[in-house]
Formats: sequence, structure tokens, C-alpha cells
Amino acid sequence: MNRPETRLERDSLGELAVPAGAYWGIHTARALENFTISSTPISQHPDLIDALVIVKDAAAAANHELGLLPAGVTDAIAVACRRVRDGELHDQFCVDVLQGGAGTSTNMNANEVIANAALEHLGVPRGRYDLVHPINDVNRSQSTNDVYPTAVKIAVAKGLLRLMPALEELAAAFEERSVAFGSIVKIGRTQLQDAVPMTLGDEFAAFAVAIREDVARIGDTVPLLLECSLGGTAVGTGVTAPAGYREIALERLSERSGLPMTPAAHLFEASWDASAFLQSSAVLRRSAIKLSKISNDLRLLASGPQAGLGEIRLPARQAGSSIMPGKVNPVIPEVINQIAFAVMGADVTIGVAAEGGQLQLNAFEPIMAHSLLQSLSWVTNGVSALRRFCVEGIQANDTVLERYVASSVGTVTALVPSIGYEAAAHAAQHALRTGIPIADAVAQHTELTREEAAALLAH
Amino acid sequence: MNRPETRLERDSLGELAVPAGAYWGIHTARALENFTISSTPISQHPDLIDALVIVKDAAAAANHELGLLPAGVTDAIAVACRRVRDGELHDQFCVDVLQGGAGTSTNMNANEVIANAALEHLGVPRGRYDLVHPINDVNRSQSTNDVYPTAVKIAVAKGLLRLMPALEELAAAFEERSVAFGSIVKIGRTQLQDAVPMTLGDEFAAFAVAIREDVARIGDTVPLLLECSLGGTAVGTGVTAPAGYREIALERLSERSGLPMTPAAHLFEASWDASAFLQSSAVLRRSAIKLSKISNDLRLLASGPQAGLGEIRLPARQAGSSIMPGKVNPVIPEVINQIAFAVMGADVTIGVAAEGGQLQLNAFEPIMAHSLLQSLSWVTNGVSALRRFCVEGIQANDTVLERYVASSVGTVTALVPSIGYEAAAHAAQHALRTGIPIADAVAQHTELTREEAAALLAH
Amino acid sequence: MNRPETRLERDSLGELAVPAGAYWGIHTARALENFTISSTPISQHPDLIDALVIVKDAAAAANHELGLLPAGVTDAIAVACRRVRDGELHDQFCVDVLQGGAGTSTNMNANEVIANAALEHLGVPRGRYDLVHPINDVNRSQSTNDVYPTAVKIAVAKGLLRLMPALEELAAAFEERSVAFGSIVKIGRTQLQDAVPMTLGDEFAAFAVAIREDVARIGDTVPLLLECSLGGTAVGTGVTAPAGYREIALERLSERSGLPMTPAAHLFEASWDASAFLQSSAVLRRSAIKLSKISNDLRLLASGPQAGLGEIRLPARQAGSSIMPGKVNPVIPEVINQIAFAVMGADVTIGVAAEGGQLQLNAFEPIMAHSLLQSLSWVTNGVSALRRFCVEGIQANDTVLERYVASSVGTVTALVPSIGYEAAAHAAQHALRTGIPIADAVAQHTELTREEAAALLAH
Amino acid sequence: MNRPETRLERDSLGELAVPAGAYWGIHTARALENFTISSTPISQHPDLIDALVIVKDAAAAANHELGLLPAGVTDAIAVACRRVRDGELHDQFCVDVLQGGAGTSTNMNANEVIANAALEHLGVPRGRYDLVHPINDVNRSQSTNDVYPTAVKIAVAKGLLRLMPALEELAAAFEERSVAFGSIVKIGRTQLQDAVPMTLGDEFAAFAVAIREDVARIGDTVPLLLECSLGGTAVGTGVTAPAGYREIALERLSERSGLPMTPAAHLFEASWDASAFLQSSAVLRRSAIKLSKISNDLRLLASGPQAGLGEIRLPARQAGSSIMPGKVNPVIPEVINQIAFAVMGADVTIGVAAEGGQLQLNAFEPIMAHSLLQSLSWVTNGVSALRRFCVEGIQANDTVLERYVASSVGTVTALVPSIGYEAAAHAAQHALRTGIPIADAVAQHTELTREEAAALLAH
Repeated sequence: MNRPETRLERDSLGELAVPAGAYWGIHTARALENFTISSTPISQHPDLIDALVIVKDAAAAANHELGLLPAGVTDAIAVACRRVRDGELHDQFCVDVLQGGAGTSTNMNANEVIANAALEHLGVPRGRYDLVHPINDVNRSQSTNDVYPTAVKIAVAKGLLRLMPALEELAAAFEERSVAFGSIVKIGRTQLQDAVPMTLGDEFAAFAVAIREDVARIGDTVPLLLECSLGGTAVGTGVTAPAGYREIALERLSERSGLPMTPAAHLFEASWDASAFLQSSAVLRRSAIKLSKISNDLRLLASGPQAGLGEIRLPARQAGSSIMPGKVNPVIPEVINQIAFAVMGADVTIGVAAEGGQLQLNAFEPIMAHSLLQSLSWVTNGVSALRRFCVEGIQANDTVLERYVASSVGTVTALVPSIGYEAAAHAAQHALRTGIPIADAVAQHTELTREEAAALLAH
Repeated sequence: MNRPETRLERDSLGELAVPAGAYWGIHTARALENFTISSTPISQHPDLIDALVIVKDAAAAANHELGLLPAGVTDAIAVACRRVRDGELHDQFCVDVLQGGAGTSTNMNANEVIANAALEHLGVPRGRYDLVHPINDVNRSQSTNDVYPTAVKIAVAKGLLRLMPALEELAAAFEERSVAFGSIVKIGRTQLQDAVPMTLGDEFAAFAVAIREDVARIGDTVPLLLECSLGGTAVGTGVTAPAGYREIALERLSERSGLPMTPAAHLFEASWDASAFLQSSAVLRRSAIKLSKISNDLRLLASGPQAGLGEIRLPARQAGSSIMPGKVNPVIPEVINQIAFAVMGADVTIGVAAEGGQLQLNAFEPIMAHSLLQSLSWVTNGVSALRRFCVEGIQANDTVLERYVASSVGTVTALVPSIGYEAAAHAAQHALRTGIPIADAVAQHTELTREEAAALLAH
Repeated sequence: MNRPETRLERDSLGELAVPAGAYWGIHTARALENFTISSTPISQHPDLIDALVIVKDAAAAANHELGLLPAGVTDAIAVACRRVRDGELHDQFCVDVLQGGAGTSTNMNANEVIANAALEHLGVPRGRYDLVHPINDVNRSQSTNDVYPTAVKIAVAKGLLRLMPALEELAAAFEERSVAFGSIVKIGRTQLQDAVPMTLGDEFAAFAVAIREDVARIGDTVPLLLECSLGGTAVGTGVTAPAGYREIALERLSERSGLPMTPAAHLFEASWDASAFLQSSAVLRRSAIKLSKISNDLRLLASGPQAGLGEIRLPARQAGSSIMPGKVNPVIPEVINQIAFAVMGADVTIGVAAEGGQLQLNAFEPIMAHSLLQSLSWVTNGVSALRRFCVEGIQANDTVLERYVASSVGTVTALVPSIGYEAAAHAAQHALRTGIPIADAVAQHTELTREEAAALLAH
Repeated sequence: MNRPETRLERDSLGELAVPAGAYWGIHTARALENFTISSTPISQHPDLIDALVIVKDAAAAANHELGLLPAGVTDAIAVACRRVRDGELHDQFCVDVLQGGAGTSTNMNANEVIANAALEHLGVPRGRYDLVHPINDVNRSQSTNDVYPTAVKIAVAKGLLRLMPALEELAAAFEERSVAFGSIVKIGRTQLQDAVPMTLGDEFAAFAVAIREDVARIGDTVPLLLECSLGGTAVGTGVTAPAGYREIALERLSERSGLPMTPAAHLFEASWDASAFLQSSAVLRRSAIKLSKISNDLRLLASGPQAGLGEIRLPARQAGSSIMPGKVNPVIPEVINQIAFAVMGADVTIGVAAEGGQLQLNAFEPIMAHSLLQSLSWVTNGVSALRRFCVEGIQANDTVLERYVASSVGTVTALVPSIGYEAAAHAAQHALRTGIPIADAVAQHTELTREEAAALLAH
């Protein structure tokens, strides 16, 4: 048949044919040509797509309430946004995550997809923008300057809110292990050198505490992301947005997002300020660094099986080597380390991008958004894997732990208040050098008898 | 005469001669030999020295109250600590800021200086450790594991508390300028391209808002630094510290520091956790990045004098060139940029160091302490210079600002709701191409008359 | 019908069903479960897949020549490798780019796909590993320890070799523009303040020179990547690889890759050393940073159109704003900036990962590989976009350039040798303050006549 | 008496009193007031001071040869430069290392000190600039644009040339140990899990190889630093420098520095290009990262004494704990780790600063210079400490090493070619589970007898 394969669209630069079936239009088409950088479309960040259409839907509702958008168009936009939220049209959000233009291409992509989906709902062909216009209607009272950061912040907030329970579950898993290991005495180590006795339960309880502190810090950060510049439009002036729009739009946005949005304190500042991203990246980095530290500890404690510390056993998840039969490696903690390294790098990316903003806008929000949303997703996935595939199945190696405690001289620290540091030091070194029990060594270096020393050491 | 030039001290590795007049002893002497890395002694961080002796003094008081330290020794230690706080003995805190050993050398340096200063107060020669012992007395109920992080955190907290009013003063200076510039209309810019009109006052007010948000974030961080692990001693076990010590020591520490110290939630976790440093570095980086962004803006707006934007004039601070006569450069904002770059690097250093901690302790606290305290000092000094030598004297260049506004087509944005995006775009591009006034161009592309267009544009 | 949908495979951890049609087997299946982190399969790095099968093919050939692999199996492996190189089976390389295990899962994925493709060539069903075994045959004389880094290095080398001509083409485009702009005088700027006159051609020629220096540095780096540890097998011992294998395998690898591979100097060192990745990342960062600096300059010079420097015009690539009609933004340079920020972050990731390696292996090669290959791809794509969509179409704005030159006092620098710095400085400042021509100002501050001054200035 | 305490100097901003005895003048005085940031004067980088006066001396010689500077003034300048090189006047180089102005203050400081030292040589009072002028004479034919980067590059080159032999000595120390440990068999480890046997000599030899490769990379970098823009003056135009100056100045500079300086390929590019600093920082980071990795290995291998790997013993350098008697920590490797973390941070600082350069100059060279010179000094000092205080005294713990080898099942890898991967894996896991010797386990899982298995394993 002779169905046309393309339709013609126009913008201020001229005409361009776009695929007839595409929900996106000429602005997206130009962006697709300009940005063939990463092969990663913005749909890879579903939270961002979701947040974008929530903003569009809220803005349309506000415009309608202020008499700027007819009911039919408003409904059609709402239906289109609902379809996207239901995951139907994600493949139409196709511009590259790496894009110039401060998010304009992402915003335009959304405007066009929503407009054409709205037209579809109205039963008219794509491109009939006289009925529903991507800019004049879908983008009404809006600018990329306020829509894009608002959407990114909501997406990041949702990511953080998803990470928090994942971390809490991981903390609970460590806590459960700490209870199981509560009575197992071990030698604590500082600077990789034997220190004083503690329990394996203490060690695992500390992991839980550390993770829960991050949950609290992340929780502190979410409100910063909900400070919303919607209504500021171009550079925070509010130009094109009618009086009352900002308040209504914010209310509709809170309803649709389920998040308690608050108005930004200063719209001009909010237009260029990237510091909510900096703060989010910082708490994410903090958490990733601690997860990496904990993973390092797990790998160290599980080193062996014969020529390592061997204090704990991690669940075997896969054959560890293509050449060494029977070898099993700590692959899950290792992937956590690598996620942390990626997050540390992404934090630098975000910092440099934030520093590079100029005057009334930060043009580099797209790389901040991509780096942050990707990091969030990786950390959340990693946290879940660490819990399910590693922590929950960790076993203590009692024999080894006991042997270390028996041979250690770290217990002598408890005698410092009674015999003094120097005498204790000489006794410890004597015991290490000769291999005799520490109580005997103490008896030789102090006025204590062997029995008195043993009693004090066992305290 | 034949006054001996050295005195002999002993430790578990053997004997060593130290200068007779030195307040420090053998542990410091060994550290001086081991760590000749940076030529920067820990006394370069006076806040750290001050915090260290506060901790020692508080610990001695607690030990005395628990009957572990005689009144005379306790008093002598208090006198010694007071001398250090008064700045008298800072040259004796001489170990390198870059040191292995997780801060042990710093702690030992403090123990030895305090012991010998206490001995001096008692009228006995240095080295008579049978009377006041650096470890058995000055370090009583303590370990580097709890003393050092506590001291570093207090020092960082004091640095942050000093930075906050400096930032607030800077914000006030920007605000004062924003009032002065309140009615001066200018062209806002996004992505370095002309956008819509705003006032110079809006621009400077945004700087003030941005800085004040950082003051709030820094304020949020201080309490994290006051969570105190004192009493945890080795790896958080509390070994050698008697019952009741922790509570009393914390109270004495709060009194002496003037800071509301709180007990750490979990002593084993607190022993290795570096996340208060991560958080402090993150808010400091955030602030530095924004100061750098603002400095970039000031440099851009002041570019010229003939071939630049030339919207504002910064105070001339020094001749700008050794070859180009009359050139004056924005040297103060430039130094802020560089401070920010240093802080961004230090943040990476601190992140890597935090990740590298192992098991019950982070051995890399000294580089975290140094990086953080140095960054704090640089930023605080820079903030003061930016205010005094630059912001307070900024002048607007009205002629230039007006010329830009007159020639701009950005005002057409205000017509989008009435004439639509496409018509407005064509009018704007027509005006730019031909140089005719934007109102005339609008009249040619729409049904509006020139007068109607002018009226709407002037809105 | 009753075609089974899965087949059962075994490894040392037990049995697992894998999809009957999958070319991959149990080791891949376990990795798929363990690593659901990034949703990005290793096939996103086609250079890595290509390099992997080249290594496998070369190893098989060497094993055959040494009598360890029958001709039929060797041929079948070669056919399988050829299919992969032809792009046929890339969807089978499905393990996550983010994986623990130092690349073992990637290596196992390749072993299994090749084995089953080889079985297919032999006309037998998948999983008949008694005929062609993923480990005993495809991985023969190999270990992940030597195969994986070898493949990654080849992939990175190929990426660098692809970047070099892209950069050279960009340099040529800048050079072409520099010739076109050769005679256009402009005011040079230092620290954003007007300096002395130069030509726009000088400015663009400098861009070409800067880029070509990076081509040279990248060229220096490639040989480091071709130092090959193949034959080292586990930790560099060469265990399981027969005498002569290493030499033959390297020769076959050079033939198949088209690259002059060289033997690593020390196999134990090569087993853990990540410094070729560090060096590659460093030269890539260097290049990205300079491209970003150049992009910043292009954006600055093109700022305006009315209220900016306006010295050059970049090609309009897309409408710049969803709200401001007629606005066109420098979207291509902006995407280069963001690529550079990502590369700067990735470099940190790679550095931290390299530092984290322990003992005989760096377990974190997968994140280094991913970060480096992704950065390479982004920079190469960006360089091409910058050339085609921006640099080749840049136009000079002669009117503006001339106006700046006419108004500038920077020409006075040329008089310093004759009238001295002070007199020149006073003249310059007088001219700036009053707006009189610089020649008049010089005449007023020196013994030169207006005509003499003008003649010297025009020099 | 009534000796005046100050003298009055003038510049284009007005008059200022400077201390009568100061060799520096008004430009330095203004910089001292403007930049009170770091309390670190540029004299902390003696290589930079030395390089600066070498450049000044070479320029004066060239000016004299071209008839632009009288013999008496030239001689006086040469004498002044010699005094500085002899270390006499370093306290006069007092401007802050952290300064705005692209190095102008540093250059002016040098100009003034040299001028006044030259005046002193001529027997006239300070400030008599009509006889020797800081700018018209000492800075003749020069600009900060060319002088400062040239001096910094020479200083960095000298730092790298000093680091190279320090690294070579460290490599030699590792090599010496590798010979001593040549026959000691141990269990190699990958991913902290036991792998196959190797020798302790192999492990230490690898450290030597790795370090020597860095020496080579550093050597590759030095020539990039010797590409010299001297003669380019302002932005590379060469304005104020007479014909022939550049060639002569370069020759004199080569003589005085002892370094084979080469002319930069393009003076405009050289004026803003920071890539020699990027490359220097990158090779320094690479080396630091590897030293940190090696230090991590040393700390791991020396962990214990009872509850660690305990394969080697590091020399005891100081008491390790203020509370745990007898504890000795690996303080020297720990300081290397921290130096590496600082270098990794400095590399980010340098990268961000390089990216921030604009148009014809990078205004941020001072922070690049400071970061790089400090890193160089720290790494060089650390390398020396690592060799002298740690590596040279490392001892092997034969008993422990033997015990690990005896208990390991990693030897089974050698049987893969004969019995296949699966059978070997089952035997290994059986041995680990039951504790029976690996040869027995092999006999149970294959057709080999115990004796055959033992013979193959011992191979």
C-alpha cells in the first residue's frame, strides 16, 4: 500500500521528515542526529521518564485550572502521561543520555511524545499540532530551565527512597549475623596487626550500625531534592507562567508524585544551582565507600581457605577460576567494590559538572542526571546482591577463630593499668619471641604470679 | 659548661637520645626519623593541637575523679594543657602531618609534651616519667584509637564553625550589592546565549541565597562530628578504661571544648568509621564548588574592559601583568577557583583514604585530617578575601547593561502565550538577522500592530 | 511438541538448567544470576568480544601446533571464533559488564559460547562437552589471569587506534578554519581580560596543534597495551601451558589481531599490573580535558548573539529552548564538555581500582575495562560530532572582531621597550578612563608625538 | 637612630610603603595582602625559585647579547641570580603558593628581588629602579605568560629527574630481596584466595619490574616539559621580544639549567596548554598508585604476628600503640599509601585546573604548580623512606610459608591437562573438606594411583 513512511515537521531551522509512526517529532529528530554518543537512550532511566510526565501532567492540570488549556486537551495530555507512566511508550524516549543543551532535548522529546499520544487519544493523526501542540500546549507555562531539574530531582529522590529500604534490609542481615556470632571471641585487628579480643558479633553489629547511619543521611537529603523551581520558567523569571500557576502546579505535582514538594526559596538561584545533586552524590558516595570498606573486610576475613585469615566462609556462588579447580572467589563483595569505584568516579564527574555551570543555568545537568541515576541503580542492585548472595549465608570458622585467640598476646593490654605499659610490652614481646603463654611471660616480667596474671588476663 | 645536650629515653625497641630541652621524647624522636615527608609539622593545624590537649585534659580530669590519677599529677597535666592552649608550646608538636600509624605518633607527641610540661610544673627535670608518665598517666584510659579521631573531629568542627560566619558575611555582602543593583535590568544568559531580561539585583541575590544554603548544610554536619568515641580505647572495647570513665570524660570534654559532645552509638563502629570526615569534606566541597561557580560568573561579567561582557567592574587589586601595561585581572576570584580545585582534589584523597580502611581501624586518618583541616583553612581565608577584596567593591557598568537590554530579542519570550512559539521564533530570528527592533519584527510576523507588540514586550 | 526447553549442565557447585538454545552454559548462567547490576552486557563493548575470540582462536591454534588439540576441534573453534568476529553471536555475550571475579565470568562466557558454536559446526547438540569442552579445550593452556587482561588491552588498543584518526580529522578541520581566519585580527585575552592583538587564525591553529600533540601521546601509549602476558596462565606461573606455547600463541595472536604483540617482561608482574590501563586512561583524560577547554573557548567566543563576545558563529543544530523562541545554543561543544567530565570521573574510577589490586591479581579489571572502553567510545563519537556538526561550519563575525580591536588599548604593550612600562600603563589607563584613542593618550604621557605613537602602535 | 623603616614604591594603582630592608617591592606587597590563603610561601618549592632565576638570568644574557641591556646591569642581574641559586635570598620569595593572576605575582616577586639584589651589587639603595628596573630590565623581553610556565616546567622536570634514581634504588632493593627470597616457595593468591605455588622471590622481583617500568614512563615525560615557550611573551605573540631573542635565550637557558630545552612547536598553543602538567601528574599518579599497591601487599603479607598471614616481617620502626604493649605496625607502608591518596587527589586538582583554562592562558597554573611540586617532593621522600626503613630489612617467615604450601590444594592445577578440570575440582574440594592430602584425593577421584598423583603434583 501507499502509506507514507514519514511525516514532515517544521521548526525554526527548517523542515525535516520524521518516521510516520514515531510519537516523537522534529526536535527529537534533530537531537538524535546531533547526539550519537553513548547509544544509551534516556529511557534507560525509567524514573526520569516517569518524573518528566508527572511534571507535564501537573503543569497541564494547573494550566487548565487557570483557564489556559481546554478540558479536552488537558484530558488527552493526562491520558498520554498515564500511558507513559504505565510503561507503554518508553521506547519513544530515545534521545541520548549524553546531550548538549541543558536537557532541552529531553524536555522536547517528552513534549512531542505526549502531544502525539494525546492526538492519538483524540483520534487524529500524529503531527496535527494545531490541536495539541508540543510547546504551546504540553510545555505551556514551562521552560526546560524549570521542568528538567524538577524531573531529575524527583527521579533522584525516588532512587534514594528505593535505596533506603535496600540498605536497611542489608543492615538487618548483618544484625542477624551479629546475633548469631555474638559469643564468638576473636582477635580484633588494627593496621592489619593483632590487637585486642572482641567478638565476631561486635564486628558484624558495627557493619549494621554503619549502614543505618547512611540510611539516616540519605533521608536527610531527600527534602533538598523536593525544593522545586517549577514556575520559574526561563532563568527563574516566571515569564509566560500566569499568576497562581506556581502554587497550583506544585500542589498537582505533589499529588501525582506522592512526594511533598516545597517551593524553592529563590527562583533565580534555583535555576542554576546544582547543589542538591552534589549533596545526593555525596551521600551516595559515602554509602558506597562504606559498603566497599565492609566488602574489603569480608574478603579479608574470608581469605584462604588454607593460606589466609579464614575466619569466616562466604557462600560459594560460582566456580572461581577457569584454570584452578575448586577455587571459589568472593565475587559478590568484589562487585560491590567496583560499584563503589564507579560511584567515586561519578562523584567527580558531578562535581566538575557543577563547577562548570555558568550564569543563569547549568548546561551540564544531563551528565549529572545520568551519573547520579546510574550510580543509584547500581548501588541499589549491588546492595540487594550483597545481602541475598553473600551476607545472609556467611558462616563463622570457629576453629580458626579460637586458634588465633589462644595464640594472641593482645590480652596483655588489659594489664596496663596494673603493671604499666613498659612491663606489659616486654612480656608481650617475650611471649611472641619464645612462644610461651602470655601469662608465663607476665610472671617473668612483673611481681605477679602466673596464677594472678592468668586471672587478670581472663577477665 | 657541661650541661648535657641530650637525655636518654627507652621504649620497647631500645634506647635513644633526645635533645635535653625537648618536651617531646623517644616516641616523637622515632616518628621524626620515620616521617620526613612533607616538612609540615602537625602544629600547622593549631585547631588539632588545641583539640588534642583538650581531650588529654578531660581524660585526666575523669581519671582523677575515678581515683586513678593523684591530684598533683592531674593539676600538673591541666597546667601543661593550658600552656599549650595558650599557644606556648606549639613548636614541640613537630611530627609530620603525613605519618603512618593511624595517628599514634601525633598522640604520643602530645603525651610526651604534656608529660614533660607537667614535670616542669612540678619542678623536676624532663624525662622523670616515674612521676608523670606519658602513657601510664597522660594517656591513661585512652588509646590512639579513640583519642585521635575525637581530637580531629573537634578540630574539624571548630573549623566548620569558623567557616559558617565567614560564609554568612560573604552572603551579606552579596545581598548588600543585590540591593544596590536591584533596579538595574540586564539580559539573563543560559548556555552563554542571551535569554530573557532580569535584574542585576536578582543575579547577586541568588549568590547570597546559594551561600546561605551551604551555611545550613554545614550546620547540619557539625553534630556528626561531635559523636564521640572517647572511652572506646582499643578498637572500641573500652579495655583499660574503668566503669564510669566514658560518661565523665565526655562531660569534661564538653565543658573544655565548649561543644555539646554526644556518645557514639556503637564504639566498635566508631573505631573505624570515617564517614563524619566524608560528610564534612562533602559539604566543604559543595560550598567550594559553588564559590568557584560564582567566581567564574564574576570573572565573566567583569570580562573586558573593551572586548568582554563588561557588565560589572571588580576592584583593582594589583597590576595584572608584567608586560601589558594597565591590565588589571580578577585575581581574587581566580584564587577562589584554585582553592575549589584543591578542595575537589582533597575530597578525592579523603574518599580513597576512607575506602582503604581495614577491619577495626582506619589507618589513614592522618591524611584525612590534614586534607580536611587544610581545605577548611584555605576556604575560610578565601571567603574572607573574596568578600573584602572583591565583592564589597563591585560596581555595575550601567551603560553596557542598558545597551545589551536594548539590543536583545529575549523579551519576545513574553509573547509566547499570546502569539505562539513559532511566530515568536520567526520574529526573533528576523530581528537578529536584520537588526530591526523586535517589536517591528513581531508586527511583521503576527496580526499584532507594532504598538500592541511594544506594549506587550514592555510588560 | 516436546522439545526440551532447557538442558542440564554441571559444575563443581552442582547442576543447573540452562535454556536449550543458549550457546552459553552453566558458568554464564551463574554469573547472570550473581550480577544483575548494570543491565549492560559485555556485548556493549564489541571490541572486547572481538579481542576475546581472537585470543581464544590464537590459543587453540598454538595448542594444536603443540599436539594438544585435534585438528577437528581446532577447526571447529576457529569457525566459532570467526562467527563471533563476524558479529553473529554477540547477543550470547550476556554477562554484566559489572562483575566480580576478575573477568572469570567474561572468560567463561566466551569459552562456553565458542564451545557450543564449535559443537554446532560439528553437528552435535549443545552441551556435548566431551567433544569440545569449554575449559579443557577452549580454555586449554589458558587462565582468566592471562586471557582477560590480554583481551582488554587489545580492545583498548583498538579503541585508541580508532580515536587517533578521528582526532587527526578534527585537528585538520581546525587547521582548515585557521587558514580561512588567518588574516582576521582580534584581541587576545588572558584571564578573560583584553590582552594584545593576534589573529583568529592563530587561535584556531593552536587548537589543531594541541589536538595533534594528543595524537602523538596516544600513539606512545599503544605499545604498552601490546605487552602481552599470554602464556602466564595462573598468576604468571605458566602452569598447564606447555613449553613453546607462549611464543606460538603470541605469534598467532599478532597475525589474527593485526597488532604487533610483544611478550611481557615479567609474567608475575604482568599478572597484577594495571598500569597500562592507567596510562591509557591518563592520555584519554588529557585529550578529553583539552577538547573540553577548546569547547569552552568556542562557547565563549560564540556567546551572544547580542550580549556576548560574539566573535564567531557556530552552526545552528537545533532549536535551543522550549520557551525562548529563536534561541540557538552551542549544544555540540556542551556535549564535549560533558564527555570530558565523564572521562575525568572514569579516570578516578580506574585509579582507585588499580590501587585496590591485591597480591598476584587485580580483581577489579572489569570496572577498569568497562570505564575505559566506554570513555573511548564516547570521546571518539564526540570528536566526530564536534568536527562535523560544529567546527567545519564555524564562521567569523568580522564586524565584531574589528570593533574590539579598534577599541582596545592592548596594543600599547608594543611600546614598552621604547617608553617603559610605567608610562605605557598610565597611557593605557588614561585611554580606558576617558575613551580617547590610545595614540593620543601615549602622546600625553610621553615625549612621543601622536604620529610617532600611532606609527609604533600600528607596527 | 632615624633609619627609615619603609621605602615608598609606586605602581599604576598608586603608592605603597614596603619594608626598607625588603628585596621585594610594591607588586609583591600587594600580592602579600591579596593572598593570605595558605601560609605557604613559594619558597617552599626551592626548585621553582631556582628555575625562575635561571630563566631571568638567561633572558638577561640574551637581552645583553642583543644590545638591549648594558653589561653592568646584566652582570648585576647575574650576580643576583647566583645569590638566589646559592640559597641566600629564599626568604624573600614570600608570595603565597595559592595566588590569582596566573603566576604574575610570582614573576613580579622574582623581578623585584633580583632588581634589588642587583642594585645592592651596584652599591645603590633598594628601590632605585631607574638603575635596574624590575620590569623594564629584569623582565625585559618577557611576560609572565612565557616565564612562569617555563620555570614551573623546569622545576617539575628537575623533580622528576630526582625521583627517577630514588625509584631505581627502591627497585634495586626489591630486586636484592627477590634474590635472597629466590628459592622460598609460597602459595600465590588471587582475589585473596589461595591459588598456585610460586616463590617469594618471584613476588619481590615483580615489585622491582613494576617500579622500573615507571622510571621509564617518567623518563618519557621529561622531554615534554622541556618544550619551551620562552620568547612568546604575551599570549605567544612575542611582542616586546626582539628578533633573535628566542633562540639565544633558549640556548642560555639550556646552559644554565643543564637541561636540553627545545622550542615549543606553536607559541600561541604553548601559551595556554597545560598538558605537560597533566602528563607529569599522570605518570606520578601511576607510580604512586603502584607504590600504594605494593605497600598494601607488604602490609598484608606482614599481617599478624599471630592472627595474620605472617609470611614476611617488616623492620620494627616504632612502638605501634599508645595502649597495646608490644604492638608494632607497618607505619612506613602506611605513609606510602597516604602519599598515594594525596597524589590521586592532586591529580584531580590538576585536571580540573587544566580544564578550567580559558582562551589564551590558563590562569590556574599556580595551583597546578603547587600540587605537582608538592606531590613530587612527597613521593620522592616516601620512596626513600620505603627503601631505607622497610624494604631493605624485610625478612621471610619460612615456617609459615612452608606450612601454607604444605596445606594447599592449589598444586592440583598442574594436573588439569592430564585429568581434566572437573576431576581436579572434585579432588580439590574433597581435600579441602576432609583435610586429607591432595594426592590422596586425586587418587580417589581419578584413575591415577596415589604415587602417580604425588609425582605429578611435585613436578
